Amino acid sequence: MIGAGSWGTTFGKVLADGGANVTMWARRPETALEIHEAKRNSEYLPGINLPRAMSATHHLSEALDGADQVYIAISSQAVRQNLKAVRPLVQRTDVPIVSLMKGVERRTGLRMSQVIEQELHCDPARIAVASGPNLALEIAREQPTAAVISSISQETADAVARRARNSYFRTFVNTDVIGTEFGGVLKNLIAVAIGIVDGVGYGENTKASIITRGLVEMTDFAVAQGAQPETLQGLAGLGDLIATCQSPLSRNNTAGRLLGQGYSFQDVVKQMDQTAEGLASVAPVLQLAREVGVQMPIVEQVKRVLDGTMDPREIAPHLTTDDDEPQGERTQNGQAGGGGALWRSIQRTLDQFRHGGRRAPGDQP
Amino acid sequence: MIGAGSWGTTFGKVLADGGANVTMWARRPETALEIHEAKRNSEYLPGINLPRAMSATHHLSEALDGADQVYIAISSQAVRQNLKAVRPLVQRTDVPIVSLMKGVERRTGLRMSQVIEQELHCDPARIAVASGPNLALEIAREQPTAAVISSISQETADAVARRARNSYFRTFVNTDVIGTEFGGVLKNLIAVAIGIVDGVGYGENTKASIITRGLVEMTDFAVAQGAQPETLQGLAGLGDLIATCQSPLSRNNTAGRLLGQGYSFQDVVKQMDQTAEGLASVAPVLQLAREVGVQMPIVEQVKRVLDGTMDPREIAPHLTTDDDEPQGERTQNGQAGGGGALWRSIQRTLDQFRHGGRRAPGDQP
Repeated sequence: MIGAGSWGTTFGKVLADGGANVTMWARRPETALEIHEAKRNSEYLPGINLPRAMSATHHLSEALDGADQVYIAISSQAVRQNLKAVRPLVQRTDVPIVSLMKGVERRTGLRMSQVIEQELHCDPARIAVASGPNLALEIAREQPTAAVISSISQETADAVARRARNSYFRTFVNTDVIGTEFGGVLKNLIAVAIGIVDGVGYGENTKASIITRGLVEMTDFAVAQGAQPETLQGLAGLGDLIATCQSPLSRNNTAGRLLGQGYSFQDVVKQMDQTAEGLASVAPVLQLAREVGVQMPIVEQVKRVLDGTMDPREIAPHLTTDDDEPQGERTQNGQAGGGGALWRSIQRTLDQFRHGGRRAPGDQP
Repeated sequence: MIGAGSWGTTFGKVLADGGANVTMWARRPETALEIHEAKRNSEYLPGINLPRAMSATHHLSEALDGADQVYIAISSQAVRQNLKAVRPLVQRTDVPIVSLMKGVERRTGLRMSQVIEQELHCDPARIAVASGPNLALEIAREQPTAAVISSISQETADAVARRARNSYFRTFVNTDVIGTEFGGVLKNLIAVAIGIVDGVGYGENTKASIITRGLVEMTDFAVAQGAQPETLQGLAGLGDLIATCQSPLSRNNTAGRLLGQGYSFQDVVKQMDQTAEGLASVAPVLQLAREVGVQMPIVEQVKRVLDGTMDPREIAPHLTTDDDEPQGERTQNGQAGGGGALWRSIQRTLDQFRHGGRRAPGDQP
């Protein structure tokens, strides 16, 4: 396991609890030592006892020596640099390489499996990705969870799934790597939107409406990139989206909540000591969306708030249709025809909140 | 508006806030009087001011006189009886009849639009249904929400949608009445399951996994009944499911939570002063599922707990597959292949909780 943050350590525990001998690689010697000797990672998983079958080292070569599966859990923006050291160590094997990372590389817009393929110069059929509703601390506490292992090779997906499972971690397989990876990227953007309305004080109807319409945007985007729509309807899309949107621990959700409470973007950045992984994905995702002509009205507006080019109070309805005729949940071109309309309605009410006045019952917009 | 409970009154407010003149029919004269004169319904919507354009009566004929749309919001088990009095009053008109009810009739297994069609002897193209993530009190508080109006007649759906919308209530249309109605029925069953794991103390991963797998069961069932899968992925399926599962006010959710905390079914029934509407739907839904060969492992087990034929602590894994090979999220026959496996895993851990012992890390099931 390359990476000993909260997710890498948790997934190492999942593997060890499933019967594997796991060697963690930690960048810092003191983290490796604590995992190896005390069976704890007190910085990232306080209070969690790690399995006896888990050892750790800060030497990459030791961690990779004799491994029959390699898992990678490093910050998505740092992974390329780290893989350069991994490459010579896995070059002569054909073992599966499993990405546990959610995000796209900011500079290139590439998914993590694509970065792995480039940097390790390896057969893409060796690469698998894991995703799903996977809040690390809950899994570390052995709460039942389902996950997806995806590889373009069914054989690789099956081999990884047989290892990455145990009594509290149920693994499904698919061969739609694109959909599986984009699910984990896109949900963060919707989670910010959910955070905003949560911060304003809205309830479950509003959030359920945004999750439902947000999933349409996610699906449209991913399908345009080559994904299967079913993947987004499953654990790697919907499942991950729900867990992230409901988790008060989600950094993306927290960022949105602070914005919704009226904090400026700068305040939010200052207040959060750890970068929300998904924030790095916003720009490349929207770049990719524009290239294939997919409209993502919710995500577009979230992005403008996040990168500081738009005051959250000035989110404009100009990306949405002003068509007042009843419409279906999907328009003919498969776009999220009404997401914008809903968002516009939400924004209108947000504005009324901010300006202190509520509409009198019976008034028309 | 026939029916002045919380949902009928809220929807009446939605219509009035959208510019309509609304006459409520309340069974009890005192409720009609309070709405009509005080613009309040203090029993069902405490603290909510009702619009001036809303009047009320306890005479059905007064309520229906000159109506150009008729909305019905009565307990699903009482609707047939009530419609007998409505029939002569709407017989000579061709105005839309809109069902706001979620549920199936226990005795017949019929959906509400089917009961309306039978009892009013009317053209099914006149009938529409409203559904979506519609927690009444949140909408009464004017929190932004999206909803679906469905009719086999696009014209009827559009006509109703033009009325049933305002600045905080956004309405979409479809012609899939079957899918729209079953979404509102089936979500209650999954909400009970969510309540159970919530009561046990599990977090967002577990709940997101069950929602995702539960939506597969809902979709399989509804499609076998003639629904479009997209309808279940939308506001009337997924949207309503999420809102219901997250709402601490949901009676179905509450029932499950009490079961999860260890209360017996009898205790739960005693403790809840109002019947959970969805509970009446469990038996007919499973009857329909069996007739078309759809397996619903999550719902089946919820049902046994609910109707007292199975102690919740004894929910057995026998409905699920023991196949230990990795599988996709959907098996070849379109069934929810893994829902049972997940549920089994959850149940196994539930059992361990109940018997006081937790598995040591590294142990295999």
